[in-house]
Amino acid sequence: MTARTEPIGPPHLAATLATFRRRVPLVQCLTNAVVTNFTANVLCAIGASPAMVDNPQEAGGFARIADGVLVNLGTPHADTAKAMALAIAEARAARKPWVLDPVAVGPLPWRTGLALDFVTRGPAIVRGNASEIMALAGGAGGRGVEATAPAEQALEAAVSLALAQATTVAVSGAVDHLTDGRRVVRLANGHPWLTRVIGTGCALGAMMAGFAAATNDALLAAACATAALTVAADRAVGRSSGPGSFAVALLDELADLTPETLAADVRLTSEEWAP
Amino acid sequence: MTARTEPIGPPHLAATLATFRRRVPLVQCLTNAVVTNFTANVLCAIGASPAMVDNPQEAGGFARIADGVLVNLGTPHADTAKAMALAIAEARAARKPWVLDPVAVGPLPWRTGLALDFVTRGPAIVRGNASEIMALAGGAGGRGVEATAPAEQALEAAVSLALAQATTVAVSGAVDHLTDGRRVVRLANGHPWLTRVIGTGCALGAMMAGFAAATNDALLAAACATAALTVAADRAVGRSSGPGSFAVALLDELADLTPETLAADVRLTSEEWAP
Amino acid sequence: MTARTEPIGPPHLAATLATFRRRVPLVQCLTNAVVTNFTANVLCAIGASPAMVDNPQEAGGFARIADGVLVNLGTPHADTAKAMALAIAEARAARKPWVLDPVAVGPLPWRTGLALDFVTRGPAIVRGNASEIMALAGGAGGRGVEATAPAEQALEAAVSLALAQATTVAVSGAVDHLTDGRRVVRLANGHPWLTRVIGTGCALGAMMAGFAAATNDALLAAACATAALTVAADRAVGRSSGPGSFAVALLDELADLTPETLAADVRLTSEEWAP
Repeated sequence: MTARTEPIGPPHLAATLATFRRRVPLVQCLTNAVVTNFTANVLCAIGASPAMVDNPQEAGGFARIADGVLVNLGTPHADTAKAMALAIAEARAARKPWVLDPVAVGPLPWRTGLALDFVTRGPAIVRGNASEIMALAGGAGGRGVEATAPAEQALEAAVSLALAQATTVAVSGAVDHLTDGRRVVRLANGHPWLTRVIGTGCALGAMMAGFAAATNDALLAAACATAALTVAADRAVGRSSGPGSFAVALLDELADLTPETLAADVRLTSEEWAP
Repeated sequence: MTARTEPIGPPHLAATLATFRRRVPLVQCLTNAVVTNFTANVLCAIGASPAMVDNPQEAGGFARIADGVLVNLGTPHADTAKAMALAIAEARAARKPWVLDPVAVGPLPWRTGLALDFVTRGPAIVRGNASEIMALAGGAGGRGVEATAPAEQALEAAVSLALAQATTVAVSGAVDHLTDGRRVVRLANGHPWLTRVIGTGCALGAMMAGFAAATNDALLAAACATAALTVAADRAVGRSSGPGSFAVALLDELADLTPETLAADVRLTSEEWAP
Repeated sequence: MTARTEPIGPPHLAATLATFRRRVPLVQCLTNAVVTNFTANVLCAIGASPAMVDNPQEAGGFARIADGVLVNLGTPHADTAKAMALAIAEARAARKPWVLDPVAVGPLPWRTGLALDFVTRGPAIVRGNASEIMALAGGAGGRGVEATAPAEQALEAAVSLALAQATTVAVSGAVDHLTDGRRVVRLANGHPWLTRVIGTGCALGAMMAGFAAATNDALLAAACATAALTVAADRAVGRSSGPGSFAVALLDELADLTPETLAADVRLTSEEWAP
């Protein structure tokens, strides 16, 4: 991918969502056992077609058919880890975008080794919370699957990682921070209930794999996926009385989200990175 | 099973649902990781007892205890595929009905081989979308887990498959087409939101395994399961504002469905097959 | 743990819930594939932090980091069973409380062997339905995953098991019966819809692992988890029209539950065991 310096604004998000909806990208998810159902429902709701092909016998071949691939390390097992390596190799060979979500990397040594290996194999986007991104960039990790640091604290690590691996890095948090090493996008939509529903971050990674099939600017794809999820979340909050009803309303709002609403409601700033 | 020529109408569905509710069939599901939770909740809601015993150590023995068995190829792995073969063998030996759902068969070679083998081992019912049924009957497959052809287009393939394997074949679609090679049942209930919630087709396969324990006419069992799901879907739509709330309302309506409502609301035609 | 004779009443439950909320216990779940998502959402809702680390490479090490560990035998596979043994060993070495949920033990020989072995390795709490507890204590089991006997019928078996293994045993039912062999707590909250939503019992086991990190009285922990789930269920019923909406409302009510409400609504009796 060529270096990009274009700014990213609400109209770019709207156009990308419109393209995504027309294309109905087929997203292969090699993801964790906890969130497969919710991830698939999020993809169906926003307008993608999910396929959770994660066995070593088929994962590589299917990556050539898919429009985008998610590799999420939430609950790796020996055979899914093997399937991930195969899917990454074939996605790369077929120039299909793939997203790495290094769940709980840092305190857990096996998956940390997998993530440190996978991140060198050309992911279009790396998505995680601040602890995970700092661990992947070489810093200290958290105590597991939770974010224990605010997203802004990981911005420098994210920029380093983006430059070192020629990738885009998305750090989820109260304000989401995304960078390709040259540009920084901050998104301020969303609600704390997103952290009380399991798998919202994991589903966001899957959405990014789908949006990466709708634009060849990976930072725009990551920003559009993040904006779609968090704008839908803002709209879902008013219809919810807790995390259970919020998760349900979130799916409704993702299905209902229009490019116009996305552009009108997103709270985004985009700038050149200046350390 | 003896050849049947009885017509299938609303009163037969009502009687079968009543029997099903009294019996509370124990349904063993060897199904994909994406839909286990939703499938189990659908079975609980309609009035069956789910058990997802899918390891090679126990799957065969449990098939002798269960009233019906589902084998769904959505996310096969080496050990679940082994468990499936064992469960099929024991179900067959114990004359328990089992249902084959050949998810994404066609473009994916490993599971296609499994499905082509399993289909020869006496399933009571084979359930899939048009692409999957055509692939299993020897035609060309789709691009993965989606239906890319209308159900009616697969009817001839379904009839051939039913006759070749002495089974019942159910093709899901906007109008569901079911056949045992002699009779054809068409069901016109349902809503497009069923395709925006992951696992509705997979859960339907599980329901069929339960209904096959309530009647020895497999076509009636498949029709009753399909009618129950799609009539409940029709009733759920009015209470829903998108795919998230629809999935929730669907479970409520399945639990609330009476034989009388089923017979009153079903839109069914039944006829002899005439090519 | 020292022998305890303190009575358990509503104020103790309230204080334990308050401690739990401040602590946000990290609960490692090695649980079945059907309920991982619901279990994690229940833990998030009540105020814990779930982590489903269940591979043999990481499960042991993570048990040292976690505040409590759940081992649930709903869908064991070779590698998760290995991970369970490792997590138990490390939890025990690090004096972290762990909970055993012997799902469907009795009719299924492989998992019954696992459960009979695991129960001797020092679980803080064993949670199951009456059939499972009777099977584990040496009696006859049921036909699978359902409770086929009322909880009170298993009380003697529960007391024997508690004394034999120096553990606390919680028997779920219309009236929940809990004992550490010296005291018996009965809890009469809850609703039949809890049995129409898959995984409520499994999620309760995970809650117990979290509450066991908030008090060193395992019987109080088990009672507090049971009370929190069933009081929330009582409150959810009024907002529900079936098992689908009930499951959603249950998550909302768990998040909304205060120590004051818990103490006010719980229907509990506590006494010394007298055979």
